[in-house]
Amino acid sequence: GKMMWEKGKEVGVTMWEMGKEDPRRVIHSIKVGFAMTLASSLCLLQKEPPPFQGIGLNAIWAVITVVILLEFTAGATLRKGLNRVIGTVLGLLLVLIVERLSAHRPIPRAVFMGWTIFVFGAAATYMRFIPIIKKKYDYGVLVFILTFSMILVPNYYVNNTISMVRDRFYTIAIGCVMCLFLSLLILPTWSGDDLHKSTITKLEGLAQSVEACVGEYFGDAQRKEIQDKLPKDSIDQNCIKVLDSKYTDETMAFYASSEPRCRGNCYKSPWQQYVKFGAALRRFGYTVMALRGCLHTEIKTPPSVLALFKDQCTRLAGEVSKVLVELANSMRNRRHFSPEILCSHLHEALQDLHTALQSQPQILSDSTNRKDSRISPRTSFEANSSPLYESKTARPPEQVHGIQKVLRPQRSKIVIASLEFSEALPLAAFVSLLIEAVARLDHVIEEAKELGRIARFKERKPGDDIV
Amino acid sequence: GKMMWEKGKEVGVTMWEMGKEDPRRVIHSIKVGFAMTLASSLCLLQKEPPPFQGIGLNAIWAVITVVILLEFTAGATLRKGLNRVIGTVLGLLLVLIVERLSAHRPIPRAVFMGWTIFVFGAAATYMRFIPIIKKKYDYGVLVFILTFSMILVPNYYVNNTISMVRDRFYTIAIGCVMCLFLSLLILPTWSGDDLHKSTITKLEGLAQSVEACVGEYFGDAQRKEIQDKLPKDSIDQNCIKVLDSKYTDETMAFYASSEPRCRGNCYKSPWQQYVKFGAALRRFGYTVMALRGCLHTEIKTPPSVLALFKDQCTRLAGEVSKVLVELANSMRNRRHFSPEILCSHLHEALQDLHTALQSQPQILSDSTNRKDSRISPRTSFEANSSPLYESKTARPPEQVHGIQKVLRPQRSKIVIASLEFSEALPLAAFVSLLIEAVARLDHVIEEAKELGRIARFKERKPGDDIV
Repeated sequence: GKMMWEKGKEVGVTMWEMGKEDPRRVIHSIKVGFAMTLASSLCLLQKEPPPFQGIGLNAIWAVITVVILLEFTAGATLRKGLNRVIGTVLGLLLVLIVERLSAHRPIPRAVFMGWTIFVFGAAATYMRFIPIIKKKYDYGVLVFILTFSMILVPNYYVNNTISMVRDRFYTIAIGCVMCLFLSLLILPTWSGDDLHKSTITKLEGLAQSVEACVGEYFGDAQRKEIQDKLPKDSIDQNCIKVLDSKYTDETMAFYASSEPRCRGNCYKSPWQQYVKFGAALRRFGYTVMALRGCLHTEIKTPPSVLALFKDQCTRLAGEVSKVLVELANSMRNRRHFSPEILCSHLHEALQDLHTALQSQPQILSDSTNRKDSRISPRTSFEANSSPLYESKTARPPEQVHGIQKVLRPQRSKIVIASLEFSEALPLAAFVSLLIEAVARLDHVIEEAKELGRIARFKERKPGDDIV
Repeated sequence: GKMMWEKGKEVGVTMWEMGKEDPRRVIHSIKVGFAMTLASSLCLLQKEPPPFQGIGLNAIWAVITVVILLEFTAGATLRKGLNRVIGTVLGLLLVLIVERLSAHRPIPRAVFMGWTIFVFGAAATYMRFIPIIKKKYDYGVLVFILTFSMILVPNYYVNNTISMVRDRFYTIAIGCVMCLFLSLLILPTWSGDDLHKSTITKLEGLAQSVEACVGEYFGDAQRKEIQDKLPKDSIDQNCIKVLDSKYTDETMAFYASSEPRCRGNCYKSPWQQYVKFGAALRRFGYTVMALRGCLHTEIKTPPSVLALFKDQCTRLAGEVSKVLVELANSMRNRRHFSPEILCSHLHEALQDLHTALQSQPQILSDSTNRKDSRISPRTSFEANSSPLYESKTARPPEQVHGIQKVLRPQRSKIVIASLEFSEALPLAAFVSLLIEAVARLDHVIEEAKELGRIARFKERKPGDDIV
């Protein structure tokens, strides 16, 4: 009893939180309930005088249409509605044709109908595999098959095709109109807005990732508080979310592209540009992911070497992060940004890093040089011991298989760690990747500019850029 | 006329190719057509003697069930069937309860029903937002709402609830049994097989990517033929496909997990391990993507420097690629592999690269040293000219805005290219990333071993490894 009460309370809290997180969910649910009640009242009120009288039991199709069509976003509803109308109309047409043809056949009518259903069912199912139809009209083809078989089969008895076709068409049309009204005019939820917001979130997530990553690499104490606030996993997750966003982006853009709306004077829908921008972000994200990979490398660069570049790298990462945040802000306010102001600090930071690397040429030189500095040579000697040569020479017989199994996983890590030259190598890679990230950021900025142009963002005012 | 004929021929060819590419599509279409005919014959043959007589018009629900349930793979069909049964049963139960409650109410029955529909419709819609339900039972909740409203509303007139509920249940059960029979016993298509195959394809795609990438970086003439055969884009696409595979992988694994089959003696379904293996492959893929990023870097390393490491890097990449191909083969034949034999050449190649890097320590040293070698110093001087300093000092007034706009996109590329030290930096990054790739390959091998263990692959025979 008490256990169930606790459990029930927990579920209740979850549901409440879910609604608070996105109140549009509550609104959507109420809309669906309302639409269903309205549609069924067409049926329940049949004892009233016309014009409702004629609908009767067929009104159930209005209810079904409403339940199936009313999706969370306006774009999805429109897309489904379009499919439903096309599918229904084609299905009804086919029924009329088949009825006409089956009238004067020598073969029994049931056999003719059976064959028709087989042929059209199989053909339509096969068509669903065509990529363009699968992507855009999958639901329409399904509705076509359903409508076709649902009218043709009962019609074998009832034989009032015309009136059945008419009723079905009207009820589904009523359902569609209801859905369009509710999803477009009453507190609409736009796919395009979701896409816009998720793009902003991605930018901010990447900004955090870059900064946290560089901070962590140089063991920055100042960043500790950020890391504590946001656990490492969530930063990784931010980045992975960007990299995995292709499917959701494309779905949202697909729905958004059927949403009939324009802010002000836009003449072309910018949604495909959002997808392109997302692709540019993913390309940038791969570099960030590679940067994060440097954190887990097996070869540790000595802190004394790291310290030489810490300030420059941290500054550069900070500037990259600032650019991303500024892009997010300009997108949030739907205004243009100034690439010049945006990037000037970035280029200064890049130049600083350049200068630092030039002034410390010995860092990237051979290990003999490095041993002169403050690094204890012991670590590299230790690492350079046996396992490497074992792996090279001794291919173990099956007897020692068990031991090998235990040793194996660590082996190539040991091999890597024993590469003597390599203490500076990961640092070089890190710096190079950071520079690569800046280069890709350029591409992101390009696409953002193009996006601003196509979506006709507001003109930038002089005070807007707080870089 | 002729245009249409051409167009029609083209569509026909596409359809034919589609079927040849995967004949299971044709089989699936025929299955659906057959099932529909069978289900409608329940209705069409009603004039026959019992036991078919009782079904009559309600048999249309068997047709609908068949059309909706019969999915391409067995797993998807099962999952949908389960949802349909649960949804239908719950919906029917609710109808019975509401009927019982509405019998002795003071308020009009139509009003009571309207409220019931509103409350349950809204509540069920809201429940669809709960992540676990959205993922696993979304369709079930939809069926629940549909069943509930489709019985309750007409029942307002007909008032033979019990028989309606019974008929609906029977017809849907018949449809489900038909679907299960066709999808599980007649030429079944398994989601698990698709997942297995797509994993193999991914491994092979990555193997190609790694080899092509290193080959291209060192301008390998021998690789030219591979590059001509496979255009660069398709290699990139292979890699991106792996990185974007999360959604499809998880869907396939989700369906596969409900497929009731075991090869031989497996006791635990390995599908979640496939997902984990896919994640490891994606992590590996990020490094490959970063490696490919090095191809497009703005700073060109002189060929003479590249030539020093070409053989070692090419060999290492070749070994990585071989390991991936061998993993793909062992997976295709469902047998274990020997990590020792698999990796020994890899470790030798790694050691070679190490030796090469140690013997050429001056490569990674400062630019002054490098200028002593065969590299013409002119390129770096040229690159070091004005644009860099312009970007640092001159923040242009609005008048020259137009010119700036033209210059801007190239600017940070120029800044990067002018970094004098940096000719060796990308090479260092490339080598470091290659080593990082080897480290991550270890993780891939781990997961593959675990996969072999869970899925109970065959034992390896001595002659199996043709590394």
